[in-house]
Amino acid sequence: MNRRVRQQDIARKLGVSINTVSLALKDSGRINEDTKLKVQEVAKALNYIPNSIARSLVQKRTFVIGFILPSITNPIQIETAQNIERKLLANGYNMMLMTSDYDKNYETKALDILLSRQVDGIFMFPTDIQNQKKSQEKIKAIRDANYPIILLSGGNFNLPSDSVYMNQYLGAYKATRHLTSMGHKEIAIIYGGARNTEKHQGYIAALKDSGLEYNPNQVATVGNSSYEQGYRAASKILRNGSVTAILASGDYLALGALRWCREQGLRVPEDVAIIGFDDLEASRFAEIPLTTITYKVEELTTRATELLFSLISDQETSTWLKPRKVEIEPTLVVRQSCGFKKRSGELL
Amino acid sequence: MNRRVRQQDIARKLGVSINTVSLALKDSGRINEDTKLKVQEVAKALNYIPNSIARSLVQKRTFVIGFILPSITNPIQIETAQNIERKLLANGYNMMLMTSDYDKNYETKALDILLSRQVDGIFMFPTDIQNQKKSQEKIKAIRDANYPIILLSGGNFNLPSDSVYMNQYLGAYKATRHLTSMGHKEIAIIYGGARNTEKHQGYIAALKDSGLEYNPNQVATVGNSSYEQGYRAASKILRNGSVTAILASGDYLALGALRWCREQGLRVPEDVAIIGFDDLEASRFAEIPLTTITYKVEELTTRATELLFSLISDQETSTWLKPRKVEIEPTLVVRQSCGFKKRSGELL
Repeated sequence: MNRRVRQQDIARKLGVSINTVSLALKDSGRINEDTKLKVQEVAKALNYIPNSIARSLVQKRTFVIGFILPSITNPIQIETAQNIERKLLANGYNMMLMTSDYDKNYETKALDILLSRQVDGIFMFPTDIQNQKKSQEKIKAIRDANYPIILLSGGNFNLPSDSVYMNQYLGAYKATRHLTSMGHKEIAIIYGGARNTEKHQGYIAALKDSGLEYNPNQVATVGNSSYEQGYRAASKILRNGSVTAILASGDYLALGALRWCREQGLRVPEDVAIIGFDDLEASRFAEIPLTTITYKVEELTTRATELLFSLISDQETSTWLKPRKVEIEPTLVVRQSCGFKKRSGELL
Repeated sequence: MNRRVRQQDIARKLGVSINTVSLALKDSGRINEDTKLKVQEVAKALNYIPNSIARSLVQKRTFVIGFILPSITNPIQIETAQNIERKLLANGYNMMLMTSDYDKNYETKALDILLSRQVDGIFMFPTDIQNQKKSQEKIKAIRDANYPIILLSGGNFNLPSDSVYMNQYLGAYKATRHLTSMGHKEIAIIYGGARNTEKHQGYIAALKDSGLEYNPNQVATVGNSSYEQGYRAASKILRNGSVTAILASGDYLALGALRWCREQGLRVPEDVAIIGFDDLEASRFAEIPLTTITYKVEELTTRATELLFSLISDQETSTWLKPRKVEIEPTLVVRQSCGFKKRSGELL
């Protein structure tokens, strides 16, 4: 499917007039039910986008871009969204945000709503997309219809979609290697909500490359990515004493873990080293400033908006191109929570 | 204006047929320009809502609610939005979020976009609405057209709009009185972005009721409500030594100020007491847990969604009613950043 499907394609396929197709798609009483059904089936099979939406795409742009997030409480995703919004505003576009609340049904519903509201394009932080057939199919259909959609995630899945994202695998790999390079041998990892497959693979690969064994008992997945859950995870994983370092999949989790350590009289980094993800402002201003993995939000949002605008302006031809995958490299921000000291306190 | 204006009202007013009005509003070539102009003028004067939108309101609800925020980085507003979104989802509605980026032009533009996208109703955290004629007029017109809109702010302005909000005046009053009751006499207040008129009046009234004089030199307004700006504000306001307490208009500001104090070797609360606003999770998990002013988000969002649903179901009659103003009382959450000690260290 290399260009937008038009009513004439459906008409040709069925050997009926364009007028018949048009009336059938409008559910007109002038067309018999059998024909309507056939037209609608072919329209679906060809990923035909309803007239009103196609019209708005071709003739009158709405200058509104949709943005789908799993949650409006994830600060780095929010920062990314706000940064993109500023770039859109500077180009005369407004942004409309919807959340999926980590629910795959809301996710596809949010896509439907944005399409029906005739946005000119969509950015999306997908929720665990590797395992969500429904979202995958919807995204594929949208792209096949030449509708600009850009995923802000997508390291290790094969969906043929345009994507701009941080390499999470490499982020976890770098963080874990940083810890092993300082002599840590018992490194726990904690996740909020669900295990991140890419991060987990990076963590395991780094352990392996450092000659360490992966120990499933040193993985904790808590309810969400809050301070409170990080506090809980630390109490769980540090109670029995062998763990000397924690990699947390988010900074709030890391800061909650830090709080638990401090309350227990554990020194950070001397007794327990901690690394987070995302470099939130809270991490810079923490009692022990946090070492963390992050990406240049500015770089990601610049690449993402450039790609979106190119898709919008090349809309008739864009699916001739292979989906573009733009990977942003993560950086390790070294602060004090993971200093160059071993548990014993001596310098490495 | 006590009910929705219909095309027949415009027709009657001008002595023309409904068909003429309908065609004129569609900018049909079958109507002469003079008549079109007249019809459009009367439509505007009567706050007529374009057909497509009115139709969606009356006949086919979109089950989408718009939400306008000044910024998606304000955590308590985000929490409020998310809480409302959950309630909407539970009732079969989806939410669409737009931000005004603290810009009055974007604010009215966001309203226009949501209206044109045919949302069933709007929630809005207005930006400094007391001083924004354009937003005020737009909100008034929307309400006059029986379109459900609820402001989530609005203590001290007289806009005839439905509103559900925390009493900011009382919040600042309570916080300041708490500080004066502990013997503080030199109490600074810091704002991020812009001075909040309601909070400021509450602060001044509490000083007065405690027999203290208001000192404009003890007011700092910094660029935004971040940790970094709170850190800057503290360095500015505490350098010369007379101030013993800080009321910050947001928790991040307060936590930034706390960090500056700790770095300077000042004890909190013994040397400097700090109170914030909003009770963010970071405040509970801070190195010195933060005393703060907040409201029950659950209470506010319950009242706000109830009001919205009643406006949606009574849409034909709602403007007969006086605008409802629901005020939520703030509470003081006492933690350690503002303990019961005076500067000298002795207990009160």
